[in-house]
Amino acid sequence: MPQRVVIIGAVALGPKAAARYKRLDPDAEVTLLDRGRDISYGGCGIPFYVSGDVSDASELQTTAFHMLRDAEFFRKTKGVNVRTQTEALAIDRANKTVRVRHLPTGREEDLPYDKLVLATGSRANRLSAPGAELPGVLAVDGMQAAREIRAQVSGGGVSHAVVVGAGFIGLEMAVALTDLWGVETTVVEFRDQVLPGVIGPNLARMVQRDLEQHGVRFLLGQAVQTFEADEKGHLAAVATPSGRLEAELAIVAVGVTPNDELARAAGLTVGRRGGIVVDAQLRTSDPDIFAGGDCVVLPHALTGAQTYLPLGSLANRQGRVIGTNLASDANPAKGRDPAATPPVVGAWCVKLFDRAAAGAGLTLASAKAVGFDAVCVHMGQVDRAHFHPDKGFMSLELIVERGAGRILGMQGVAANGDTLVGKVDVVAALLPSSPTVETLAGLELAYSPPFSAALDILNVLGGAAQNILEGRVRGVQVDEFAALWAERDKTGAPLFLDCRETADASPFMTKYPDDWRNIPQGELADRLAELPRDRELVLVCNTGARSYEAFITLAHAGFTNVVSVEGGMTAIVAAGLGI
Amino acid sequence: MPQRVVIIGAVALGPKAAARYKRLDPDAEVTLLDRGRDISYGGCGIPFYVSGDVSDASELQTTAFHMLRDAEFFRKTKGVNVRTQTEALAIDRANKTVRVRHLPTGREEDLPYDKLVLATGSRANRLSAPGAELPGVLAVDGMQAAREIRAQVSGGGVSHAVVVGAGFIGLEMAVALTDLWGVETTVVEFRDQVLPGVIGPNLARMVQRDLEQHGVRFLLGQAVQTFEADEKGHLAAVATPSGRLEAELAIVAVGVTPNDELARAAGLTVGRRGGIVVDAQLRTSDPDIFAGGDCVVLPHALTGAQTYLPLGSLANRQGRVIGTNLASDANPAKGRDPAATPPVVGAWCVKLFDRAAAGAGLTLASAKAVGFDAVCVHMGQVDRAHFHPDKGFMSLELIVERGAGRILGMQGVAANGDTLVGKVDVVAALLPSSPTVETLAGLELAYSPPFSAALDILNVLGGAAQNILEGRVRGVQVDEFAALWAERDKTGAPLFLDCRETADASPFMTKYPDDWRNIPQGELADRLAELPRDRELVLVCNTGARSYEAFITLAHAGFTNVVSVEGGMTAIVAAGLGI
Repeated sequence: MPQRVVIIGAVALGPKAAARYKRLDPDAEVTLLDRGRDISYGGCGIPFYVSGDVSDASELQTTAFHMLRDAEFFRKTKGVNVRTQTEALAIDRANKTVRVRHLPTGREEDLPYDKLVLATGSRANRLSAPGAELPGVLAVDGMQAAREIRAQVSGGGVSHAVVVGAGFIGLEMAVALTDLWGVETTVVEFRDQVLPGVIGPNLARMVQRDLEQHGVRFLLGQAVQTFEADEKGHLAAVATPSGRLEAELAIVAVGVTPNDELARAAGLTVGRRGGIVVDAQLRTSDPDIFAGGDCVVLPHALTGAQTYLPLGSLANRQGRVIGTNLASDANPAKGRDPAATPPVVGAWCVKLFDRAAAGAGLTLASAKAVGFDAVCVHMGQVDRAHFHPDKGFMSLELIVERGAGRILGMQGVAANGDTLVGKVDVVAALLPSSPTVETLAGLELAYSPPFSAALDILNVLGGAAQNILEGRVRGVQVDEFAALWAERDKTGAPLFLDCRETADASPFMTKYPDDWRNIPQGELADRLAELPRDRELVLVCNTGARSYEAFITLAHAGFTNVVSVEGGMTAIVAAGLGI
Repeated sequence: MPQRVVIIGAVALGPKAAARYKRLDPDAEVTLLDRGRDISYGGCGIPFYVSGDVSDASELQTTAFHMLRDAEFFRKTKGVNVRTQTEALAIDRANKTVRVRHLPTGREEDLPYDKLVLATGSRANRLSAPGAELPGVLAVDGMQAAREIRAQVSGGGVSHAVVVGAGFIGLEMAVALTDLWGVETTVVEFRDQVLPGVIGPNLARMVQRDLEQHGVRFLLGQAVQTFEADEKGHLAAVATPSGRLEAELAIVAVGVTPNDELARAAGLTVGRRGGIVVDAQLRTSDPDIFAGGDCVVLPHALTGAQTYLPLGSLANRQGRVIGTNLASDANPAKGRDPAATPPVVGAWCVKLFDRAAAGAGLTLASAKAVGFDAVCVHMGQVDRAHFHPDKGFMSLELIVERGAGRILGMQGVAANGDTLVGKVDVVAALLPSSPTVETLAGLELAYSPPFSAALDILNVLGGAAQNILEGRVRGVQVDEFAALWAERDKTGAPLFLDCRETADASPFMTKYPDDWRNIPQGELADRLAELPRDRELVLVCNTGARSYEAFITLAHAGFTNVVSVEGGMTAIVAAGLGI
């Protein structure tokens, strides 16, 4: 008898699991249901539909060969039955049925299953501030909301917008509103930096500055107090502790919550903070029920902790694993090893205006929070041969465990997103096998001047981390530099030693004669006598390479109170620190 | 007493080893010598200087902060003594001295060393054809040759050129001559494909077609017979078996030979086919002599065989390892683990006109040659979300060991070189740890629509390889398709079944009514009766995705004599196969 499979949820994981399974077991009876009208759409593409990069919403719902992935498509090309506008109400695990309701008619029925797949996804978090339900206050929550947002901005009725939340979607929406539509946009973020939790504060400042340079404003460390209506009851303004922001549109992008209620009610194991618990085969605590995508938690490759990562890429990969395991269950005689999903590392990327940001693994803060003795190494360099005209600047931060030298994560901001994503993907791919800084320093990567540097930026970063872990240099980063700089009028303030050629250093020497000194790195060994031995020295150059060399020279000459600014003036300027 | 180190060769590895070592051991006495005038230049940048991408030769010899890396630079900023135009004549290992000659004066002396580094590099191979020494016949062999080539083409005296050799440098030079200077260029290659040894024949055809579309001509499987002179004794033409090619310039790019003679004469172990043998610490058979870069052979990560890979990127990374180990030798009390260089995987990339090519590890032919039961899986897909306007097409070939499913290599051709290099780098980084197709199918990579697809092309490729290894589909590639297509007028010829929508298929049905049939994949299950069961079926769609689905449907219905064309019409067209 063919195996009967019911899949609840038809956005990303559900359709993928259904299609994969039917290819392996063409006789199976697969029913894919969703409470919405739209199925199998690229939700991560919504900001690019709003921005106009994607001209028509249907493009998010078509295949690469321009066929609409609707119910009929799945029936004809995949042999899968699809029921839209059909909500799953309850799972009866004893009788192996799912109670469903057809929303337009209200008709209910029980669908029998041999195997069940929960692909229920997540829902956008809402704010509790008064007025959060006003027309004009929208979350990026499915195709319907996307069409509404685009209709509002393209209709010309929006000249000011507020985006609440500076995570991936918040930033992408701020870029979309500003770039094509010229909407004056303010991002309000409760935490004190953009991309909280996924990137360190110095890179976050670079991200923020990229958006600010294109007119986006930021209110960090602030929460929305009220959404205010005009006389017609539509959103007119957003009140914050810093004042009232005029806004015809507010986009709330403050994270998502897993839709785990159905699983919870059926007695399946759910994580402490929500999310269905699954094993590597993506089975729930009931072996006949699989789950994956935005409704599950998975162990993290570095911390081992159950981690919630609602990412469309994970959902697609997990769909294939579930499809494979459904087939193994149907035909155990084939003796195939079950497919497994690896622990997650949390790889991500986001396009800004003139830059992109990306990362994988832990940030310094998240590494410390789980008890790692971690250090962050900052490095800036062009992304290909420095003599090639296509070069763009890339800043990377490597998070490393002291002692073992194990790499815990890497984040970056760069002019060229493709090269940055390439570097992050390399680290993401290696992270599960516990690479060290030595691995990174010696990694063999493809080189040709139009695409990379002979000593790849990842090799240089690994080497720089080795130098720091082995105590050969003491680095400070932009925020620590800023703190030292703020001290400069006090007694015992450090002396800033510019290691660049004099032409680069002289404007600063003129402006800060007491604090800024210049000895080009090539002259340092011969001019040590000019330097005070009783004052802290802060070494600065363009990117940190020459100040590192200078540090070595000074350490060898017995100077002990010296630090070198990692990333140098380039990092200081990119972070928007005007000195 | 400070350790005395002599380094022979000052292009890539030598300067890197010297600088690294001096940072670790500032008291050391380091002498860097080279028989040329130019030191520390980016040799891989020469084609881009010839093309005009790099406007001045000095840019290949400056740091990222525009300082000329000459002898004075190394003395001042690195504390390294440099002697140019100084040739090493012999090594006296017993007395630990190197006999050197200052070329302008002829003066000879013995330099004592505690440790010696051989960074003697390689030299371009010459042809034995008559006339190979004529003016106008040049190899890409150092800065002087680069200046000569650029002077000739920028002087306007070159309207036709011949490039001998279709390897990396040959192709880069053909692009450079054609692109900026409009020189009519013919590439003559002895083997029957471009990029022989590093890419498979189907991808090679795509590479060749990219250059042909910009006017470059190819003579494959042919050797130069004679270089012919004009009445002034300058090159005028190149004779080949296919006829005489007018040419004022011939560039010979037929590989390089390691400069291992000094090592050989000193009794150090040298590989069977040349190249100094070193261990992972880059020590030769004499523990006081290190070697690295273009003059050594290294074990391959996949075959274990001593492999010669003259790549600037390897030289730079190895320079750092030697620098570290020189410091360990000077100060063993510090008890540092010696630095090690990992086995090589042979990662490479090359920019063409509208495409780039890249790869790592073994090709199908090289895998079979060393005894692997290997298979090649071809896949084509856009390099980011298919709805994003920046997308470009990428073709990848994965080389996989049957049974174990171990990945042996990957090569690709793509419109966007940065994304291609990113994918190849991921595989290059994983190769030493024996990844399988399952690893690749489940790999977590960064996703956002402007940069990648939700199911990354590497995931799709890994999955496709799993399907082939598990026997779920039988694929043929473009060359096999071409062979089947050539049979179509004979008895028992296969029927070509186009699985695309009818609008795409109908031109072919009109042209080849007996051989080309169309059933859109979504209608196939209902129209099986239309197909003959006694004739081989060759399934074709745009990229291979729908023909894979059709294969499954046909296999389930009992059709046994079926193959699916991997990469589909896109691969067929990209390979220049007009049907």
